[in-house]
Amino acid sequence: MSIPIKDDEIDIVIGALHSDLTTFMNAWRPIFSRFHLIIVKDPDLKEELRIPEGFNLDVYKKPDIDHLVGTSTSIIFSGYSCRYFGYLVSRKKHIVSVDDDCLPAKDNKGFLVDAVAQHITNLTTPATPFFFNTLYDPFTEGADFVRGYPFSLRSGVTCALSCGLWHNLADYDAPTQALKPEERNSRYVDAVLTVPARTLMPISGINVAFNRDAVGPALLPCLRLAGEGKFRWETMEDIWSGMCVKVICDHLGLGVKTGLPYVWRNDRGDAIASLRKEWEGVKMMEDVVPFFQSLRLPPEATTAEDCVVEVANAVKEKLGAKDPMFARTAKALLDWVKLWKSVGVSSYSPGA
Amino acid sequence: MSIPIKDDEIDIVIGALHSDLTTFMNAWRPIFSRFHLIIVKDPDLKEELRIPEGFNLDVYKKPDIDHLVGTSTSIIFSGYSCRYFGYLVSRKKHIVSVDDDCLPAKDNKGFLVDAVAQHITNLTTPATPFFFNTLYDPFTEGADFVRGYPFSLRSGVTCALSCGLWHNLADYDAPTQALKPEERNSRYVDAVLTVPARTLMPISGINVAFNRDAVGPALLPCLRLAGEGKFRWETMEDIWSGMCVKVICDHLGLGVKTGLPYVWRNDRGDAIASLRKEWEGVKMMEDVVPFFQSLRLPPEATTAEDCVVEVANAVKEKLGAKDPMFARTAKALLDWVKLWKSVGVSSYSPGA
Repeated sequence: MSIPIKDDEIDIVIGALHSDLTTFMNAWRPIFSRFHLIIVKDPDLKEELRIPEGFNLDVYKKPDIDHLVGTSTSIIFSGYSCRYFGYLVSRKKHIVSVDDDCLPAKDNKGFLVDAVAQHITNLTTPATPFFFNTLYDPFTEGADFVRGYPFSLRSGVTCALSCGLWHNLADYDAPTQALKPEERNSRYVDAVLTVPARTLMPISGINVAFNRDAVGPALLPCLRLAGEGKFRWETMEDIWSGMCVKVICDHLGLGVKTGLPYVWRNDRGDAIASLRKEWEGVKMMEDVVPFFQSLRLPPEATTAEDCVVEVANAVKEKLGAKDPMFARTAKALLDWVKLWKSVGVSSYSPGA
Repeated sequence: MSIPIKDDEIDIVIGALHSDLTTFMNAWRPIFSRFHLIIVKDPDLKEELRIPEGFNLDVYKKPDIDHLVGTSTSIIFSGYSCRYFGYLVSRKKHIVSVDDDCLPAKDNKGFLVDAVAQHITNLTTPATPFFFNTLYDPFTEGADFVRGYPFSLRSGVTCALSCGLWHNLADYDAPTQALKPEERNSRYVDAVLTVPARTLMPISGINVAFNRDAVGPALLPCLRLAGEGKFRWETMEDIWSGMCVKVICDHLGLGVKTGLPYVWRNDRGDAIASLRKEWEGVKMMEDVVPFFQSLRLPPEATTAEDCVVEVANAVKEKLGAKDPMFARTAKALLDWVKLWKSVGVSSYSPGA
């Protein structure tokens, strides 16, 4: 059932928040070296990037961002949001994106996990969002549909998004991490599963892959907390983006999978110091979840771009009055679609 | 977060489809011996049961069923349905039910799985059906809610049903098993997860546990295929029951979990010979799934009994004309509620 995919249909996108990528790149070399890489340097990062030799890559820096995006937009690519610039300039069908504080994980037999291969398997085998299979992803080798699974739903739908997981430091929020400072995730759950239609989830941008042709414009850096920081838990841009893309996948009849592959995530940041910033995001979720749960997009919205415009309109109408942040987000969503359309037709080489 | 539960609040219910339970009971002895067991002998089974000594148990046979249930009902307790008689006569808060062709499984470290302990953990920790946690059951030791999980949804809801899985022979239907005669399930997926609200799933009766006080009447032996056989894949009674109980849990704000514990399921039956009987069930699912997906119970239905009556009325109205089987099922659903109410107040000792 898997659709074959060539290596040159994949871009690996890395947002560089650290200047020295030597350890990161060397650890990933056996997995990444076959692919084209897009490295986007956080425009706030002052030091020069250190990247080892031997990769096929393009590096995008602040001048490239300024050149392509200009000043006529509300979109900001600083911090974790720099990865979205890579999504924008890629011309490949599939994107795999891994944070620069993650190394390859090992599976439960001690073998190195090829996270790219697993993401691509997830994306190129169908998803089954309309009925839950208790045996997990039926398209995994050695698995299938359980007795009672309706035959008419077994062909599934295109999987547009694959969300991987994290060993060592799980993606907890600051309060949880502060309460359990010693807790590390070592449980290897050997499964991939489709998140059912109409079920929301917190999608993290740390270790994801997606079908850029199908949903590229729906992964977007549009929500920025007023007191946003440089630690993962001080941002909500990927959680917001995740709710957008899940609602859009549901609307377009596309699937979202979660589970394998794992990456090994290193410690970073001081959870207790981050607690103050975190609460802004916590409060936001209480408004945002009911909004996305009740959001229904009109049937005329048939592309990811259309859908983002509809989400923007709904944000403005339903959330705009609650907090100025949401009015800014609505504008950023519209700006993002414009940018996607304009940059999408340009041909540009970094450092030009 | 776990609610402590005493051993005497649990009944283990076993439907005996085989007369010689020696191997089965001895294998389960270390796990079952602390609990009270209800063994219900399939009324079609002629041979005397062979049960080893040393258990605290009640055995119910055809005369007990005839005495308690009488002839004024459409409910039939033969074959796999005999287990439901055990659900009916139990007076305990929690029921764990395992088929007599299943032995204890081993975990990924080679240790015996205590399926009862895992089911009880699943039932006594909250379920989280309103938002998906990518880190699986947040109430598992060493796990928690992922960043972005709304705090207002973290207390969860009561878990009413725990669905376990199968090593060796997975619960495939006859066509799948016939296509992959050599396939055996050995993948140990070390996870429990809540099946999201409004998501249907094929629930199997092979290895389940439930809160009898909360949803007992919603597990029911009411659908019987005309050509029903004695192999698991020739029946649909548990798949139907599963859709009823899932819809009812969703309506009552209760949760359903799936995943651990595994049991080791032995081979049985000839999949190819069963193919003819199986198709009746396959065809049925195509009518039944849209029915349950669109079913909404009225707010006045506040107990599992109320809900079953509402399901019965809807089956009669929406499916009754499609096949005489559904009219019989609607009647059986109403008969089951009557039986649950009448037997629920009786005190009866087996063999009396």
